[in-house]
Amino acid sequence: MSDRFQVLCIGNAIVDIIARVDDAFLDTHERIKGSMMLVDADTSARIYDDMPPAVERSGGSAGNTAAGIASLGGKAAYMGKVHKDQLGAVFAHDIKAVGVHYGTEAATEGAPTATSMILVTPDAERTMSTYLGACGELCGSDIDDDVVANADVTYIEGYMWDRDNQKEAVLRAMDVAHANGRLVSLSLSDSFCVDRFRDEFVDLVENKVDILFANEDEIKSLYQTETFEQAVDQLRPHVKLAALTRSEKGSVVMQGDEMVAVAAHPTPVVDTTGAGDLYAAGFLFGYTSGKSLEMCAKLGGLAAAEVISHLGARPETDLAALAKKELAV
Amino acid sequence: MSDRFQVLCIGNAIVDIIARVDDAFLDTHERIKGSMMLVDADTSARIYDDMPPAVERSGGSAGNTAAGIASLGGKAAYMGKVHKDQLGAVFAHDIKAVGVHYGTEAATEGAPTATSMILVTPDAERTMSTYLGACGELCGSDIDDDVVANADVTYIEGYMWDRDNQKEAVLRAMDVAHANGRLVSLSLSDSFCVDRFRDEFVDLVENKVDILFANEDEIKSLYQTETFEQAVDQLRPHVKLAALTRSEKGSVVMQGDEMVAVAAHPTPVVDTTGAGDLYAAGFLFGYTSGKSLEMCAKLGGLAAAEVISHLGARPETDLAALAKKELAV
Repeated sequence: MSDRFQVLCIGNAIVDIIARVDDAFLDTHERIKGSMMLVDADTSARIYDDMPPAVERSGGSAGNTAAGIASLGGKAAYMGKVHKDQLGAVFAHDIKAVGVHYGTEAATEGAPTATSMILVTPDAERTMSTYLGACGELCGSDIDDDVVANADVTYIEGYMWDRDNQKEAVLRAMDVAHANGRLVSLSLSDSFCVDRFRDEFVDLVENKVDILFANEDEIKSLYQTETFEQAVDQLRPHVKLAALTRSEKGSVVMQGDEMVAVAAHPTPVVDTTGAGDLYAAGFLFGYTSGKSLEMCAKLGGLAAAEVISHLGARPETDLAALAKKELAV
Repeated sequence: MSDRFQVLCIGNAIVDIIARVDDAFLDTHERIKGSMMLVDADTSARIYDDMPPAVERSGGSAGNTAAGIASLGGKAAYMGKVHKDQLGAVFAHDIKAVGVHYGTEAATEGAPTATSMILVTPDAERTMSTYLGACGELCGSDIDDDVVANADVTYIEGYMWDRDNQKEAVLRAMDVAHANGRLVSLSLSDSFCVDRFRDEFVDLVENKVDILFANEDEIKSLYQTETFEQAVDQLRPHVKLAALTRSEKGSVVMQGDEMVAVAAHPTPVVDTTGAGDLYAAGFLFGYTSGKSLEMCAKLGGLAAAEVISHLGARPETDLAALAKKELAV
């Protein structure tokens, strides 16, 4: 019998390779600023060869969320596939070291642990080129039903739709969660990701998702609208609870007819990597701790503000202490 | 025929695993604050298991020096052994990416690439536990005589004395350098390292070293004196040129009867890792660029100040631009 978890996060287990570059570097390597683009091993090697010296840190969208929840003092679990190699050991160490339950078996055959080259431009925007590697091996048997059944919320990153076996694994997790009376949450991850899987995501939002996370670009892409307000109008009848982030404009939470808008937490922006992941961490920690929607949004904003104030997508400060100081939580 | 290099640096090729810990962590794991202690694979795993989430960055004392010289706009080469694995690729990438010539072949058998767990305490002091791994495989055949012959200075870290085959390799490099009319430089690395090899280091300083780098603790340990001044008096008759660093007291350069004292470059101290390595980088870049001893010491102080102002032992800013701005070099 598993412990009770507030949130189980499922996603691509990735080690980030982070470097500062100028805009010309993105042009040379045909990167679309702000996007996550999947790359094969050859393209990955070509970009890396040309990259400035880098820093390696554990990342992965849902992994960052799990680490954020743990830093806030919440009980989190994580599922995602690494290879049994040096970077896989780094990923496993870093997520366990913050107190997240992580039991997915490392692959001993096939591709190495996933890496994402994160190029941070002078405007603090991040552009990601991800080699999925061992992540692509995640399949249904990696989903520990017992953990799913004992997690208040199972949170899934939209990036999982890029591989069929991953998608099937997380769809199964959603079913297990619902069969046990638990909630399912989805992050749309990236507007290009939404482009790739629009119909499936629209269907998911209507039929399987209890708590939706999206930023302005993603929700506009989902409904192919010109304005945020149009997208919100389209989304409203279909979703139980949605938290929509708008960068420096803060976030909007929607539940039935209730709408809560919260201002962004002021901070100097160094690197936007992980902003959405940490917003989800703060929000879900608040939600599973019984906080008001407004406080959930404030916790999300606070956690996001911390992570964009430094290089790297995981918190560098004790978020529980920060939340106590800033929000008296 | 090799290009001409200002400085060839030879040392342990290491990837740093950096985390902030409190003093109690050092006590629990019986670490001596401020030291570099060698650990076997089991001890390394035991400390790592207990470590907070970490950041991985290329390091290694002489590697940091080479990267610093390159950042200052100097022409540097590096020799040091990695394994053909993920962290070895990280090390090779990072040193080449700053423009350092690095041609040492990666080992395909034996131990993995070296790692050093760098524990940074709230006082900004760093305590290192190093698993030497593939570094220990460096031997005479890894020394490219052509590169040594074409480097104005061959700079060697004292840490190389911990393995006999490494020591023999660098002693051979010293002989090749001198046979080609080049200079040999040595860093004493660490006062505990000096303790281990005092007699050999005293002999080296007298007979083989043209430019000596040491900090206050190291030079006091070398001559087993109580005060810095006593150590300087003992050293003076035996050394051609010595640059002695004294942390916040700056540095003292000694050449024959000439003594030059330079104040430390003021900076907030975040992590002292790499201070000595970057001082050597600035000094040797200045020296091989024909600068005065005072300017060499100032360049050393400036490079050291940059590296201790952030986490990690390699420069994060363009040192050439910094030197131009601060020292009009």
